[in-house]
Amino acid sequence: MKEVVFLDARPIGVFDSGLGGLTTVKKMAELLPGEDVIYLGDTGRVPYGSRSRETIVKYAREDMAFLRRFDIKAVVVACGTVSTNALDEISGDYDIPVMGVVSAAAAAAVRATKSGRIGLIGTKASVRSGAYDRKIRELLPAAEITKNACPLFVPLVESGRLDPDDVVLRTLAEEYLAPVRAADVDTLILGCTHYPLIEGVIARVMGPGVTLVSPGAETTRELAAYLAENDLLREDGPGTDRYFVTDSAEDFASVASLFLGGSVRGSVERVSLDE
Amino acid sequence: MKEVVFLDARPIGVFDSGLGGLTTVKKMAELLPGEDVIYLGDTGRVPYGSRSRETIVKYAREDMAFLRRFDIKAVVVACGTVSTNALDEISGDYDIPVMGVVSAAAAAAVRATKSGRIGLIGTKASVRSGAYDRKIRELLPAAEITKNACPLFVPLVESGRLDPDDVVLRTLAEEYLAPVRAADVDTLILGCTHYPLIEGVIARVMGPGVTLVSPGAETTRELAAYLAENDLLREDGPGTDRYFVTDSAEDFASVASLFLGGSVRGSVERVSLDE
Repeated sequence: MKEVVFLDARPIGVFDSGLGGLTTVKKMAELLPGEDVIYLGDTGRVPYGSRSRETIVKYAREDMAFLRRFDIKAVVVACGTVSTNALDEISGDYDIPVMGVVSAAAAAAVRATKSGRIGLIGTKASVRSGAYDRKIRELLPAAEITKNACPLFVPLVESGRLDPDDVVLRTLAEEYLAPVRAADVDTLILGCTHYPLIEGVIARVMGPGVTLVSPGAETTRELAAYLAENDLLREDGPGTDRYFVTDSAEDFASVASLFLGGSVRGSVERVSLDE
Repeated sequence: MKEVVFLDARPIGVFDSGLGGLTTVKKMAELLPGEDVIYLGDTGRVPYGSRSRETIVKYAREDMAFLRRFDIKAVVVACGTVSTNALDEISGDYDIPVMGVVSAAAAAAVRATKSGRIGLIGTKASVRSGAYDRKIRELLPAAEITKNACPLFVPLVESGRLDPDDVVLRTLAEEYLAPVRAADVDTLILGCTHYPLIEGVIARVMGPGVTLVSPGAETTRELAAYLAENDLLREDGPGTDRYFVTDSAEDFASVASLFLGGSVRGSVERVSLDE
């Protein structure tokens, strides 16, 4: 008789400023197919990346408070902007791990680089925070870090402009990536949930010698290792997802499938965070 | 002895999803230099134009409730998205006029058109609402209206990409304006606060035979006429402005001067709408 393996059935909480964090949920479906996921996308207030740190912290606290209504075993902060600006403020008092995307991505970049020259692109708030710089230098004090904010990448992706031959996308990619190319980095951190969707054009502009690091994917690997080491995996069947959004649930499916790369599995509900 | 003219010293309230409504404040400084202005920009939740009608109505109600804390004589809803999606919901119970930008702009477009073919560009929510269509057809039932949403114009303007020779701006303008050009309109409503800043490239793409209508400017003219007719003008000196924002007040000046076309006159304060 086969032993039933059923270690910790509690779901994993994931939140993001909007729907970009679904790129991380997609990776979780690959690496942690048995897990249930509770996802919150603050679509009523997206984007966070152009806002002040103070506002980002306030919103992130409200997002966390919502997820904590559920009995979850870990939280993944899929949002690059929250991970770089508000992780300490929201993870302090909890007894479960709250994983931002910076730590795993910085470690992956340090493992990947040969020259020590690492690039970072992200939202204005992520780049301004210095969070990646600090984490990379903890691991590799001599690292040379070159970074640039790419404020139009998010609206471009959300407009569905993903074609590497699109002149608008291509022109902006060349402009935004010029400083990291000029610094001759050999590793580039794609510090925003939306960027994996335009990895094609980024790779083409950066050229073949540059390793691209996706924080969401690296963090999912870190989460999988953590759950396995601590006997917290749920292994008794395909997981199900529950999605919560703060704007209308009606438009969810069309945008969500862009980031999930397929159809949505699970229910979608609208919630209010200020109640 | 010169008679003191001092008819109604109460300020005018203006609100917008963000800072784009300052293009209307700029016009007010020109046409109504004696008036005090209280401006609210919901910079903590901007943009509204990509959100659902339900969320736009909720936010607009909170914006109105904030302005009503002041003893004001009129409200200008500078935001095209709110004007097209939520004007009835927020103007119902008040004893002062609440002016959206649709009415004056539709009237101006109908006066300007010779062919009856009128174009409209705006946010996704503004275009979807049908508010301009209804108002134009009330005045000119035979009008042929062609419209298109331009979701990337707002982030482009906020990134400071205003140069008509910028390949990104030019490419998107040609793409977004193709349907209204194909319809051979002779009048085009610039249905979003940000568009006057890129009027140059829009005019170039549309060609010289097309009249561009700016709703904020038309609405300011309508407001000036209303105040004069109802003895509500304040004429005893240069007005002062008070600005309120829902995100940090620190970044205000740099973005505000983009829309005001000069330096900011008046104080800036951060407020919370959910308190």
